[in-house]
Amino acid sequence: MLLAIPFDDLQTGTRWTSRGRTITEADIVRFAGISGDWFPLHTDQEYAARTDYGARIAHGMLILSVATGLIPLPPETILALYAVDRVRFTRPVFIGDTLHVEMAIARKRSRGSDRGFVTLAVDVKNQRDETVAAFSSTLLVRRLAAQ
Amino acid sequence: MLLAIPFDDLQTGTRWTSRGRTITEADIVRFAGISGDWFPLHTDQEYAARTDYGARIAHGMLILSVATGLIPLPPETILALYAVDRVRFTRPVFIGDTLHVEMAIARKRSRGSDRGFVTLAVDVKNQRDETVAAFSSTLLVRRLAAQ
Amino acid sequence: MLLAIPFDDLQTGTRWTSRGRTITEADIVRFAGISGDWFPLHTDQEYAARTDYGARIAHGMLILSVATGLIPLPPETILALYAVDRVRFTRPVFIGDTLHVEMAIARKRSRGSDRGFVTLAVDVKNQRDETVAAFSSTLLVRRLAAQ
Amino acid sequence: MLLAIPFDDLQTGTRWTSRGRTITEADIVRFAGISGDWFPLHTDQEYAARTDYGARIAHGMLILSVATGLIPLPPETILALYAVDRVRFTRPVFIGDTLHVEMAIARKRSRGSDRGFVTLAVDVKNQRDETVAAFSSTLLVRRLAAQ
Amino acid sequence: MLLAIPFDDLQTGTRWTSRGRTITEADIVRFAGISGDWFPLHTDQEYAARTDYGARIAHGMLILSVATGLIPLPPETILALYAVDRVRFTRPVFIGDTLHVEMAIARKRSRGSDRGFVTLAVDVKNQRDETVAAFSSTLLVRRLAAQ
Amino acid sequence: MLLAIPFDDLQTGTRWTSRGRTITEADIVRFAGISGDWFPLHTDQEYAARTDYGARIAHGMLILSVATGLIPLPPETILALYAVDRVRFTRPVFIGDTLHVEMAIARKRSRGSDRGFVTLAVDVKNQRDETVAAFSSTLLVRRLAAQ
Repeated sequence: MLLAIPFDDLQTGTRWTSRGRTITEADIVRFAGISGDWFPLHTDQEYAARTDYGARIAHGMLILSVATGLIPLPPETILALYAVDRVRFTRPVFIGDTLHVEMAIARKRSRGSDRGFVTLAVDVKNQRDETVAAFSSTLLVRRLAAQ
Repeated sequence: MLLAIPFDDLQTGTRWTSRGRTITEADIVRFAGISGDWFPLHTDQEYAARTDYGARIAHGMLILSVATGLIPLPPETILALYAVDRVRFTRPVFIGDTLHVEMAIARKRSRGSDRGFVTLAVDVKNQRDETVAAFSSTLLVRRLAAQ
Repeated sequence: MLLAIPFDDLQTGTRWTSRGRTITEADIVRFAGISGDWFPLHTDQEYAARTDYGARIAHGMLILSVATGLIPLPPETILALYAVDRVRFTRPVFIGDTLHVEMAIARKRSRGSDRGFVTLAVDVKNQRDETVAAFSSTLLVRRLAAQ
Repeated sequence: MLLAIPFDDLQTGTRWTSRGRTITEADIVRFAGISGDWFPLHTDQEYAARTDYGARIAHGMLILSVATGLIPLPPETILALYAVDRVRFTRPVFIGDTLHVEMAIARKRSRGSDRGFVTLAVDVKNQRDETVAAFSSTLLVRRLAAQ
Repeated sequence: MLLAIPFDDLQTGTRWTSRGRTITEADIVRFAGISGDWFPLHTDQEYAARTDYGARIAHGMLILSVATGLIPLPPETILALYAVDRVRFTRPVFIGDTLHVEMAIARKRSRGSDRGFVTLAVDVKNQRDETVAAFSSTLLVRRLAAQ
Repeated sequence: MLLAIPFDDLQTGTRWTSRGRTITEADIVRFAGISGDWFPLHTDQEYAARTDYGARIAHGMLILSVATGLIPLPPETILALYAVDRVRFTRPVFIGDTLHVEMAIARKRSRGSDRGFVTLAVDVKNQRDETVAAFSSTLLVRRLAAQ
């Protein structure tokens, strides 16, 4: 787990790769249900077949949500998700694609003596190692003393 | 619906307000299940009670996902979600809070003769009209001729 | 089970009462997600509080769906659901209400030598024995010989 | 949206067509879970393969539920769903079929000076434009003055 | 229903066979979501393809959970599930397999004058009649007088 | 993670404690939907109120399923869940209880030169540190050489 060590010991540039998860038709259907986003590119295969994509694709927010679920965060140190920046959706995710996350510590910044911000540069990749989305994510963390 | 008119007629500054949606315990539980994000601030009330929040709060990505579901997009003109920028989570969302979205057309930009980018500035607000999250969202749209 | 006996032995007027089921907030939230019906009377408690109901109520179609789930049908004899008639929603169903079904065989009618129609008169009642919905349901059944 | 204009201006015969939605295996599985209706024609492909249908089909109530979700209703004027009549299931819906709704205002009737009933004649059609279900639906609406 | 008769009339050795249920990709995806068990053999088809199984398989606990759902229990007599013993997972369950339960009364034992334990020997079988899991399940039942 | 080290280095008696998870009404409702187990002690609060428990309780299999989800298993070494033994449900789990798992390596046994069985003794406890269920779970693991 990338952030399970004390803040002061975190090294920018440290990389970590997640397990994978296959995006299923059930995921897209359930995500439409929970988000309320029924845009037909995700939920109507007749419509999707007439677009450049040629088939239903995953919602961008489903990709982001799955990505955050693939990043384990230690409950002892993480206080909150503060910001998400520069989200770009670079390739469609189709039913049956398997995603994983590759990420690196991009920046760290103290905020007083007991807290700090850590910014992760996150790439979401498919089974062909193509980036489907990229973003940076900034967490507020507890600045624990190294023990 | 904010984007149901031709691209050339869209006016930056035009505002639109969505219906509301109450965030329930069931939403948070189901979102943990679909995202795979079981961070205990969202799923363990004993842990959450010991944090500054004092109770379980909604996942940031659930707030974003619900927000996109509250923004109706016309299937005739929207081609894709291209980018999301400067997402800030400014207040916690607790079980029982009711969210709505207020948004404005922040920018538009042609991309060739038949397509364009439209950037929306989105505020997600609770039942006390407090902003809980803000972001900008850029859509690739079909540049239909006014008919 | 009301229809587990041969068609020729079914008696109009025979009555049957189901087990109960409590309608939860999670049921309403999930039903919005599966039906795509986000009407705010079901999903926005601020809106619902301003209506005559004073609180969120279950979707009519959720009540019908739960009712059909409370009626066990023998797979050996039932061929299809043919019709539903005269559905009336007579009282709101609130979160926490417990529903059960009372029904009777209202009519039977042969359709050739091996099939028949059976019409059920169905009352959906709450924990105070008040009818919240009523309808009739016509099933196409296999006309098995009494064995 | 068909009912977004004042009651007095509604014209019987006015027609409206919805977006489409693909019925997935996940929809049928989830609907079994929320309704409690596990009839094997919907949930057991070995059983379904031996019926005239030859494969699992969608629950009738799922078709109705999806249909109501495809009909947008303006929260400003709709007060309640009052009745559903003459529901007929005319063709099976298989996994992968894409449904849409075509509907018309069939009748309107005042109920005092501030309310009225509007009856919609609804056809649910598949991707081959075949009617899979038909019903009429009566809504209690607020009789707003034209502004 | 196997246990709908009075305790004193239950015969060890009595057998009962359930209806069937097809295990779908949606079931596995939803079970990962509700259990929180994202082990990649169930949720990552690239990983699963590299194992001896060659494809994603159902969680063992999903098989057990579905099995208990296939065993109807009379609410009048069953008080609690007391124990589950000797659970063995003997064959993988793949997406599309259809399970049913075959069970027998293995033992009964009084516990005072008004209660008793009934132990069921349960086989979970697939559509080729192969046992995929076996276990015994002990229920605490009300010892009703024969009426 | 308890099993992330080579088989030959695993020590019987080693203990591990999981994060917690609150069992919600939504979990019970969804578990009824996925398992098909609608026993009224879990789904009908009027029935449950008349039992000794006084309120709806979680399904035993939901408790087991959540417990397995709380035990992280390293995909590099775990091959399969082989057996579950001596499951005892010792206390009811009510809506709002928060569960965690305490477990220990109870036994290990080689099976050839490259595989082994590891048996875990698992206690599922609530927020008052009371055991609500206990069982042992035997996993087939890859016997990796220490690196």
